[in-house]
Amino acid sequence: MNHPIPTVLRREMPAALLAGLQARFGDRLSTSQAMCEHHGRDESSYDPMWPDAVVFAHSTEDVAAAVALCNEYRFPVIPYGTGTSLEGHILAIQGGVSIDLSQMNQVVSVNAEDLTVTVQSGVTRKQVNLEIKDTGLFFPIDPGADASIGGMAATRASGTNAVRYGTMRENVLALTVVTAEGKIIRTGTRAKKSSAGYDLTRLYVGSEGTLGIITEVTLRIYPQPEAISAAVCSFSDIASAVNTVIQTIQMGVPVARVEFVDENSVRALNKHDKLTLPEKPLLLFEFHGTEHGVTEQAEVVQQIADEHGAIGFEWATRPEDRTRLWQARHNAYFALLQLRAGSRAISTDCCVPISRLADCLLQTKADLEHENIVHGIIGHVGDGNFHVQMLVDPNDPADVARAEAVNERMVTRAIAMQGTCTGEHGVGLHKIGFLVQEHGEDAIDVMRTIKHALDPHNIFNPGKVIRW
Amino acid sequence: MNHPIPTVLRREMPAALLAGLQARFGDRLSTSQAMCEHHGRDESSYDPMWPDAVVFAHSTEDVAAAVALCNEYRFPVIPYGTGTSLEGHILAIQGGVSIDLSQMNQVVSVNAEDLTVTVQSGVTRKQVNLEIKDTGLFFPIDPGADASIGGMAATRASGTNAVRYGTMRENVLALTVVTAEGKIIRTGTRAKKSSAGYDLTRLYVGSEGTLGIITEVTLRIYPQPEAISAAVCSFSDIASAVNTVIQTIQMGVPVARVEFVDENSVRALNKHDKLTLPEKPLLLFEFHGTEHGVTEQAEVVQQIADEHGAIGFEWATRPEDRTRLWQARHNAYFALLQLRAGSRAISTDCCVPISRLADCLLQTKADLEHENIVHGIIGHVGDGNFHVQMLVDPNDPADVARAEAVNERMVTRAIAMQGTCTGEHGVGLHKIGFLVQEHGEDAIDVMRTIKHALDPHNIFNPGKVIRW
Repeated sequence: MNHPIPTVLRREMPAALLAGLQARFGDRLSTSQAMCEHHGRDESSYDPMWPDAVVFAHSTEDVAAAVALCNEYRFPVIPYGTGTSLEGHILAIQGGVSIDLSQMNQVVSVNAEDLTVTVQSGVTRKQVNLEIKDTGLFFPIDPGADASIGGMAATRASGTNAVRYGTMRENVLALTVVTAEGKIIRTGTRAKKSSAGYDLTRLYVGSEGTLGIITEVTLRIYPQPEAISAAVCSFSDIASAVNTVIQTIQMGVPVARVEFVDENSVRALNKHDKLTLPEKPLLLFEFHGTEHGVTEQAEVVQQIADEHGAIGFEWATRPEDRTRLWQARHNAYFALLQLRAGSRAISTDCCVPISRLADCLLQTKADLEHENIVHGIIGHVGDGNFHVQMLVDPNDPADVARAEAVNERMVTRAIAMQGTCTGEHGVGLHKIGFLVQEHGEDAIDVMRTIKHALDPHNIFNPGKVIRW
Repeated sequence: MNHPIPTVLRREMPAALLAGLQARFGDRLSTSQAMCEHHGRDESSYDPMWPDAVVFAHSTEDVAAAVALCNEYRFPVIPYGTGTSLEGHILAIQGGVSIDLSQMNQVVSVNAEDLTVTVQSGVTRKQVNLEIKDTGLFFPIDPGADASIGGMAATRASGTNAVRYGTMRENVLALTVVTAEGKIIRTGTRAKKSSAGYDLTRLYVGSEGTLGIITEVTLRIYPQPEAISAAVCSFSDIASAVNTVIQTIQMGVPVARVEFVDENSVRALNKHDKLTLPEKPLLLFEFHGTEHGVTEQAEVVQQIADEHGAIGFEWATRPEDRTRLWQARHNAYFALLQLRAGSRAISTDCCVPISRLADCLLQTKADLEHENIVHGIIGHVGDGNFHVQMLVDPNDPADVARAEAVNERMVTRAIAMQGTCTGEHGVGLHKIGFLVQEHGEDAIDVMRTIKHALDPHNIFNPGKVIRW
């Protein structure tokens, strides 16, 4: 696809830097075309832009050594986890060394009694849950992909459980970070709260590799709830579905998950997963608590849903039924792609105060229909966050431009409603302009001042988040 | 008392700056001794160090104008809310202009449907709750004092409800901040989550006036629970009380508050509040939820407490009984002071991972007893946070030094247990050295780099948090 990428000079990799990396990393350094190409693409619709070399790190010290060398030669370094970012985060637009953290996949310590776990950055979210399974605890943050924890921290990721458990912002307690000078720092402790100085943890969370490289992460984990139940119901229109959610949140019902699936996405899912859901706007709920507590929550929600004309409110308490429903939700992205053969998806990510959710969704839907764009909308609506998947022909610039224009109008709308251009995907390359629109030039200047101070030679993932 | 204050040059206030401020603020500028003295003391045990002038701001623009002038003349500015900080935060150790925000006490907007409220920095936490009372919502963060919201944000404050609702870190959605150049920025939006760029909100939260001046704060607020109940029980020893808490947290019981009161504090409270509590270690619980939910929580906690030998587990569901118990908890500080006539309290604030809480508390208790220091211990133990109040004779340097030595050993112990030197009071003047011990020189260097970048002339509350 032909997204515009900022025109920048691709820097030349100094031979001495390559030699220094070779001396330090031996066969853990690769400059093969295949390897570089693999590390120059993510799940965005950008064409790949590959790095000059890939280093496979096994330790924080490895990362520190590679960064120190790159800093000496003023050459870009880009951390790489699983390559599942969505906004072009890892593209080597100025060239650079990709530091692959996927082999830093050790759990450093499980502190079940404190509800914390410390992992290396390359550990994925599913691996965390496998490793702590026997403790009766779990890690709730679940972006679509089985992303690395380091990558999730770097993009401030969230997912379906965020409405109850928060995002990476709330669930990262401490980090190990490599600075531009190649120094290793620890931000935060394992204490649940602290007023000890500047909150470096949350400065690096969401910094997308532009301020330092995260090599270890201490996470909060949670007791598995005594009981879980799920519910599903359909509505004749989007407004009724969304208003059900708004009222549920406003009443303080502690739902663990509440997901919206529009009628297009339901149609796609029925086809893809051989389901027979009514092809109308749908809500999926999950409740966590005691046996009695989840029943109580579901009853309140059913009552609210009924008041908004819910159709076929169904509970699913059996694990297999719950899994089937949630699996379907997770398949929505791939199911949707099949609605238009040969298409690629442009995925949006705005988030608004919940009282504005129905307005924002409905106005966006009208725009999509007016523009005749094949699309589906799914959303973490309990947080006011939703994604439009617009299916475009990657070889038709006019088609792509039309979709981008809808996105731009939607983001402008969300910002006017005191919302944000990205609820969980991050800025990467794609939202640099929107970020300015959202925060204003003066706040962006503060961000830029921090970037310049912590990365004076602009080696950390240059060209992402903010313009130098 | 004779705490050591870092030896720094008191800067001379330029006459042109004074004239500029007078021209801009007229009778909202004061240089009277009484006014300056009042703005140069907090609730720490430091002797006051007063500013050269006090400006009463009525708007963000007022603050911006004052800051721009001070920046032009490289002269310190210190924000002032209610003067209730505990670590010398607002002492004008290099002289300066105190910007009093207490008249910026307007609620900017209540967005009940989004569970947010935006207030000027001078609004106090009790005022927030008064202003939103009719909405059925409440703001849970409750440090001991009726502090200003701006001050609470600046010190990353918390209190008794943090175990369930989080601290200012989790409950500030966005800020209006005046930068060193006198620019006004807005950090964040009213969306519940966002991945849009560096988390400036959380960088300013806890920065103690050293990076900018917070003039408006958007807070999360919560539906008042359908039901509230409280419980109280005593234990024969500290370990049993603390282990009850540890197990409660580990089981995921969503307690709203759980406070520990040691036997000395109980004795003081009995005297002060004419109560007849057993003079043993005590736990106070509060449960929020549905009618059935709070009963369920209380039953689980009672069972855990019983297993640890709880004495006299009592429920208090009547509001007046609950209020009496919690009022007593809030009076603990003043009650304790009466245990030693003419004394002042040195208050500590460490916070450890909850599994280390019993160890940390017991070792500290042993040290206090060994040193024969009159003291009480109270704690937000659900978060692993506790305060020792050591009653010292302010005129006896040896007495003060002995107490400081106990504190130092305790902080060292807490840091070794992967905890923090301050759970909620902040760094101010008192904990600058401990901060280095906790984070290490390299992480402090990152903080210092940020300070230098955002406040190049060191005008914002100089000499606090980190050494220049």
